[in-house]
Amino acid sequence: MKFNDFPIGIFDSGLGGLTVLKEIRKILPFEDLIYFGDTARVPYGNKSKETIIKYSSEILGFLTGIGVKIVVVACNTSSSLALEYLKDKADVPVFGVIEPGAKKAVRVSSGGNIAVIGTSATIKSRAYSAAIYKEIASLESDKSRLFGAAFKITEKACPLFVPLVEEGFADEEITKGVINHYLSSLFTEKPSCLVLGCTHYPILKDSISAQIGKNTEIIDSGVETAGAVKDYLERNGMLKTGTKKGCESFFVSDDVEKFKELGGKFLGRPIENVVLAEGIK
Amino acid sequence: MKFNDFPIGIFDSGLGGLTVLKEIRKILPFEDLIYFGDTARVPYGNKSKETIIKYSSEILGFLTGIGVKIVVVACNTSSSLALEYLKDKADVPVFGVIEPGAKKAVRVSSGGNIAVIGTSATIKSRAYSAAIYKEIASLESDKSRLFGAAFKITEKACPLFVPLVEEGFADEEITKGVINHYLSSLFTEKPSCLVLGCTHYPILKDSISAQIGKNTEIIDSGVETAGAVKDYLERNGMLKTGTKKGCESFFVSDDVEKFKELGGKFLGRPIENVVLAEGIK
Repeated sequence: MKFNDFPIGIFDSGLGGLTVLKEIRKILPFEDLIYFGDTARVPYGNKSKETIIKYSSEILGFLTGIGVKIVVVACNTSSSLALEYLKDKADVPVFGVIEPGAKKAVRVSSGGNIAVIGTSATIKSRAYSAAIYKEIASLESDKSRLFGAAFKITEKACPLFVPLVEEGFADEEITKGVINHYLSSLFTEKPSCLVLGCTHYPILKDSISAQIGKNTEIIDSGVETAGAVKDYLERNGMLKTGTKKGCESFFVSDDVEKFKELGGKFLGRPIENVVLAEGIK
Repeated sequence: MKFNDFPIGIFDSGLGGLTVLKEIRKILPFEDLIYFGDTARVPYGNKSKETIIKYSSEILGFLTGIGVKIVVVACNTSSSLALEYLKDKADVPVFGVIEPGAKKAVRVSSGGNIAVIGTSATIKSRAYSAAIYKEIASLESDKSRLFGAAFKITEKACPLFVPLVEEGFADEEITKGVINHYLSSLFTEKPSCLVLGCTHYPILKDSISAQIGKNTEIIDSGVETAGAVKDYLERNGMLKTGTKKGCESFFVSDDVEKFKELGGKFLGRPIENVVLAEGIK
């Protein structure tokens, strides 16, 4: 098997990363995809850096053991805290979801306020702020694209969003109340964009958008990451050959049936080929 | 060291079991207590039976390895799904929180409706219903205490209660809304008692009580379990000798500082002696 025909590995703490897989599938229809959801140990968002690195590292080993040409860390928490470690360890390229989201935020805001929401661990890491400042710096050095404008970044943790989504409460009144509770100060601030820094949050996009108003562009890091992955594969001549529809395999660390049931909702279509990864948990 | 002077081992998926430790401490001031909180893998409430048995079994091994005279499974989910397995495996007595709560429910309801709330896994297991029917059967066979009344048991999963408590939202308006969402049908049913079948729920006791009304007795399984443990130690001559104030040690599978901070809120006093259990996670 040619290296180009190896699958793309994608992993997440649980189900949320399926929103990233969905975006990758949209623009890369011929690639084979292998997804790992750490459903036994979900959520990562309130765990320590050491624990997140340990878990992510085990999954990286699992995916590279199967054989993948690239790994997408489709979990914002893991991307925030473990990405550098994983990049050092892996012998294939490793992509996180932070940098693509940050780049898009700088591009659309062109100065002004950028808001980022995520889990406690993601926000505490300040990984989005760091990536946004890095992107601004790289643009500043390119004189033709100098902004000269002052950026203000507001980061806000929204720990209840994940359990609300997992409970299927996305459209409930309660969820609107929780959105208002976390984000009311942002609503008055009117940021030029709001980055959804957690793979569960796209499910709440419409509810958040309705409250924050049309002038704030909502950025889905998953969409941006899918674009960055496609770009990378193209530029490096790593796209899969042929035009056969790509396969998908799913591995989980806990109950297969539950993943099929809930995962189907995230993906918007039934999930097949789900296997329990006995070695991990 | 005499076996009677060995500590009592208590474990939970995370912080919630501290409410049980608190009740045990109240009525057994001289006992040494060792607590294990599986903070790296919390929550258990939406995981599979196999995973919960695996994790619980590892912790049982850890506690019996240190040396304890009795193990209290202060986690309703683990008590519901892993207790029989742990009892078979352990060479010391193992107590769960289900049976004491169920016994109290039958005693106070004397016929009529019994309501039980808990995590998805606890409710799906129907462990409380089984324990309640077992208790009714044992009383029925004692003719002098025959009830003759029909019992109706309503079990209801409330998956958002744990994240709300962990987020410190116990007294927020949002939480009142979530309580109403889950329990409004119970409010009209007016059960004679409501069993709090999760160690996090005592934190919400006042809010639940305010909505369900005074005629429903709220039963805290943790309080009942503490009583059952004391009873057992007394009956079997296993109480610690002397009247020296008991020590407490805490082990966790994730960040020590976070456990100290949040755990102090559950316990109502500062927590010392917290150690990271490297081998488990």
